[in-house]
Amino acid sequence: MSILSVGTVAFDDIETPSGRANNVIGGACTYISLAATYFVKPVRIVSVVGDDFPQETLDYLQKRGADLAGLQIKEGEKSFFWSGRYHKDMVGRDTLDTQLNVLANFDPVIPPQFKNSEYLMLGNLVPEIQMRVLKQLPKRPKLVVLDTMNFWMDNALEDLKKVIKKTDVLTVNDEEARQLSGEHSLLKAAGVIHKMGPKTLIIKKGEHGALLFHKGEIFFAPALPLAEVVDPTGAGDTFAGGFIGWLARTDDLSFQNLKRAVIYGSAMASFCVEKFSIERLKGLNSSMIHKRVQQFADLVHFQPV
Amino acid sequence: MSILSVGTVAFDDIETPSGRANNVIGGACTYISLAATYFVKPVRIVSVVGDDFPQETLDYLQKRGADLAGLQIKEGEKSFFWSGRYHKDMVGRDTLDTQLNVLANFDPVIPPQFKNSEYLMLGNLVPEIQMRVLKQLPKRPKLVVLDTMNFWMDNALEDLKKVIKKTDVLTVNDEEARQLSGEHSLLKAAGVIHKMGPKTLIIKKGEHGALLFHKGEIFFAPALPLAEVVDPTGAGDTFAGGFIGWLARTDDLSFQNLKRAVIYGSAMASFCVEKFSIERLKGLNSSMIHKRVQQFADLVHFQPV
Repeated sequence: MSILSVGTVAFDDIETPSGRANNVIGGACTYISLAATYFVKPVRIVSVVGDDFPQETLDYLQKRGADLAGLQIKEGEKSFFWSGRYHKDMVGRDTLDTQLNVLANFDPVIPPQFKNSEYLMLGNLVPEIQMRVLKQLPKRPKLVVLDTMNFWMDNALEDLKKVIKKTDVLTVNDEEARQLSGEHSLLKAAGVIHKMGPKTLIIKKGEHGALLFHKGEIFFAPALPLAEVVDPTGAGDTFAGGFIGWLARTDDLSFQNLKRAVIYGSAMASFCVEKFSIERLKGLNSSMIHKRVQQFADLVHFQPV
Repeated sequence: MSILSVGTVAFDDIETPSGRANNVIGGACTYISLAATYFVKPVRIVSVVGDDFPQETLDYLQKRGADLAGLQIKEGEKSFFWSGRYHKDMVGRDTLDTQLNVLANFDPVIPPQFKNSEYLMLGNLVPEIQMRVLKQLPKRPKLVVLDTMNFWMDNALEDLKKVIKKTDVLTVNDEEARQLSGEHSLLKAAGVIHKMGPKTLIIKKGEHGALLFHKGEIFFAPALPLAEVVDPTGAGDTFAGGFIGWLARTDDLSFQNLKRAVIYGSAMASFCVEKFSIERLKGLNSSMIHKRVQQFADLVHFQPV
């Protein structure tokens, strides 16, 4: 099955307790797509960059199986830039700088040959732009996965609700699920969010794992305890990429398989945080990924008497 | 196998986002022992109360299988009292009042018939008092489980380290594991804490579950997503009671069985938080407990391909 991946491709300056990295590759769409290429090819990208974005990275993405026909390269303009500093807990972070640049006027255009994509991943972006993507598709994709964040709940809630209504799987973190639903209990929050549209909700809890709510059933995926988290940037996007990648590869939307997809997403995210930027996501292979999935299975396995 | 349970038996005033309860039964030893009686009887209690403590509660504990031969009742004195208010997240809390009362001069005395106890649970208490308990035992118990908190790391670290050195299983929360070890990664923290004595470490993460580290192996137990948490007080103690209860019942200290014990502890804790004080821990039965353990198994179960 084919994946259409829409979101940002960007530069990041990142500071974490482990060190810093300047002007490195970032962007939700970058992480999502790179992770997804380990499961299906091609991954069709719709995004925008300036002419400052390195050709070398574009070549690499293409080599890995990304189709860049929907990537707009704006001559004379600069790519989206984000700079952040993570707190000691590697969870909280301060945004130091955001330069929208090409993103300010981003108008996503879906190339005709991308319009039949079965799996759509809408990475975190202005909800109104996410909606413009949906409107360009003549036929509803088999699965629409939406990632978003508290910023849009604060600043564009009505637009966000419209796109959530058209979503099959929503991925947010625990605080965002609470904010969106007005419920503190994640169980109750899931009930409220299901009524907003998505029949499937994934609550990402970072180092505390992830919860999957699907038609009254619940699954809990742990996070792998790691000796060192170098850079959490992109972990949520990488999770989403692994998740939709696994689903597109297997084309099976049963609860059993959604659970596997959450674990594959978690496994990809656990690689992502081990190095800055997308470095750790380069040069993985199936055997490494399956081995890590097995570690997740072992981590929670017990035999009730 | 017999369990010796040492810790506080107390009154609490509790305020949570779900409501408030005044002058209700509390204390680490109370929760631990009550939870443990669902697995083995008798549970031998060493603690202290004033003459204000209700005979009705003592009768109830005895009826459930607690042996109160080591409970000192101080005539003319008042029981230990704690008052706290939980934050909206049900994790953070402010202590509003602490009245040590009988606890100020507590000198634990182990009755002769308790000295052969195979399983020792040292509930959160002044480390020096925990040590006095160990010193009264002519033979080292088969398993020593120690619960403690950041307060003792701040105020009695050297005493705490001495008792930790004599401990088999240490239970702390994630922030306490980080404070005690000086490591942010829980994996690294476990390595440091193993070197301090305990070959087994349990890191309790409340609504995010618990991690078990044992001789280089790791197990992750989830927390059950609940529609409503009424009162988190005693959840950690109840966890410890279910944990040591299961181990004493089965008398099997293999990693496989330690994992089960963590799940039984988690299951008991998931009951505890559903009502104020010890109310939900009254009137459980094996079938209810086993059913909940099965919910934990289902919650994390997936079939890797």
